[in-house]
Amino acid sequence: MDALKRFGISLPAGLLNRFDREITEKGYQNRSEAFRDLIRQYLVKRDLDKNEEIVGVLSLVYDHHVPSLSNHLNDLQHNYHEHILSNTHIHLDHQNCLEVIILKGRYSDVKRLSDRIIGTRGVKHGDLSFTSTGKNLTGV
Amino acid sequence: MDALKRFGISLPAGLLNRFDREITEKGYQNRSEAFRDLIRQYLVKRDLDKNEEIVGVLSLVYDHHVPSLSNHLNDLQHNYHEHILSNTHIHLDHQNCLEVIILKGRYSDVKRLSDRIIGTRGVKHGDLSFTSTGKNLTGV
Amino acid sequence: MDALKRFGISLPAGLLNRFDREITEKGYQNRSEAFRDLIRQYLVKRDLDKNEEIVGVLSLVYDHHVPSLSNHLNDLQHNYHEHILSNTHIHLDHQNCLEVIILKGRYSDVKRLSDRIIGTRGVKHGDLSFTSTGKNLTGV
Amino acid sequence: MDALKRFGISLPAGLLNRFDREITEKGYQNRSEAFRDLIRQYLVKRDLDKNEEIVGVLSLVYDHHVPSLSNHLNDLQHNYHEHILSNTHIHLDHQNCLEVIILKGRYSDVKRLSDRIIGTRGVKHGDLSFTSTGKNLTGV
Repeated sequence: MDALKRFGISLPAGLLNRFDREITEKGYQNRSEAFRDLIRQYLVKRDLDKNEEIVGVLSLVYDHHVPSLSNHLNDLQHNYHEHILSNTHIHLDHQNCLEVIILKGRYSDVKRLSDRIIGTRGVKHGDLSFTSTGKNLTGV
Repeated sequence: MDALKRFGISLPAGLLNRFDREITEKGYQNRSEAFRDLIRQYLVKRDLDKNEEIVGVLSLVYDHHVPSLSNHLNDLQHNYHEHILSNTHIHLDHQNCLEVIILKGRYSDVKRLSDRIIGTRGVKHGDLSFTSTGKNLTGV
Repeated sequence: MDALKRFGISLPAGLLNRFDREITEKGYQNRSEAFRDLIRQYLVKRDLDKNEEIVGVLSLVYDHHVPSLSNHLNDLQHNYHEHILSNTHIHLDHQNCLEVIILKGRYSDVKRLSDRIIGTRGVKHGDLSFTSTGKNLTGV
Repeated sequence: MDALKRFGISLPAGLLNRFDREITEKGYQNRSEAFRDLIRQYLVKRDLDKNEEIVGVLSLVYDHHVPSLSNHLNDLQHNYHEHILSNTHIHLDHQNCLEVIILKGRYSDVKRLSDRIIGTRGVKHGDLSFTSTGKNLTGV
């Protein structure tokens, strides 16, 4: 775990007051924790902008009655196994499946692969979100 | 599976041409499939706006050396088990864990619970994305 | 202008180093300025979540040959003049106009009015973005 | 104005029913208008992804008491006048100004210039949104 470094910053009193009110309301236990969160969110956005290695989380909803869709998704994932970390399958109801695929790679590669998967006939909805590999967010 | 209904729509020729070019480039095999995707994305956005029941996919990156964090996250999830469908844990590297939690509930409830989890001390990055329960996206 | 308040926060050294690198690359002249920006972005998001009074900036692209569209948009804006601060019209080319309408009001009211305007027949593209009224971002 | 082209698409009956309900609720007068909107939104997203020429709308909130800020913003805009179409200034209250700057250029250029402007000391909040130049959205 990384050593903590303490330093000072200056904020207008009114801005700081409102920030403290909001983060308390949101459930933060102290100001440094809230600052760390803001910084990390900023760094994750920078990773995306700079096409760094990131983690993508792809959610797919599909009808499990569509013939051969699940095999086809499976094949696709095996072809790109170097980018795919895991796969969770949820039976939403009699008809609908949710599949959450965790991908890792440069932003552009993850995006392209994800687009291909979402474009598969029979996929009803797909959404790709992003987080960090953790490497660029050292410390706690 | 839902019966298909065929109907006509009118589009300016230039707009339709560009649309066809783009969806081919994106890998769609036919126009109807691309239309279905656009419609479903629209309906998922409407579900969020109207606070309907949705599926949330929450990605968390955290340091597994932080004492008791993983127990704390576990407790939180058990307290809200009626909203939590599953939990996937990935060992990103020696230090970093990725946890992807799948939640279900009205948009506002999923958002509130997710904010609480992201706000936990030790969580480095959290991101919540949304998809459908499938119920409002009938047919293939 | 608000008095500045100086206080200390603790960050893991590695996280702080990367943050400093990124903000320098992005053109910030010092750390406090970058922190102020992050805080204000956070507060604007909170304003939206809490349905506070905000400023909306609505961009519309439309074809100025569509009969009576511009009159219709004009009428709509007059009916809701208490929410509309200004209106900028740009002649993009022979065919296309851009109209940027600045709105003010609670988030839900601005969103509803904006949806109505975007839904007007002949509007080719509409996008609504948000900023602060400034009141909740006191100080520099 | 572009000639209309009529063609048929197939949708599952349940999906089409829900779509019709939602667009009626949203104020659309017919299905084709709603389809055109979805297609244009899709094309604008593609323009961004492919770094095409787009229109950016940059909203800035700043304190007009900050010495020389408004001159500095003015200079910046003149240096990049080939990307700047217009500038609207709103007096939000005694302290706060809103400036909405309309930019045109390739996505990456507009983003970079916008980042520089938002990073100016004294700017409290900046938000960049995007729309089309209209050229890629031919027809009504």
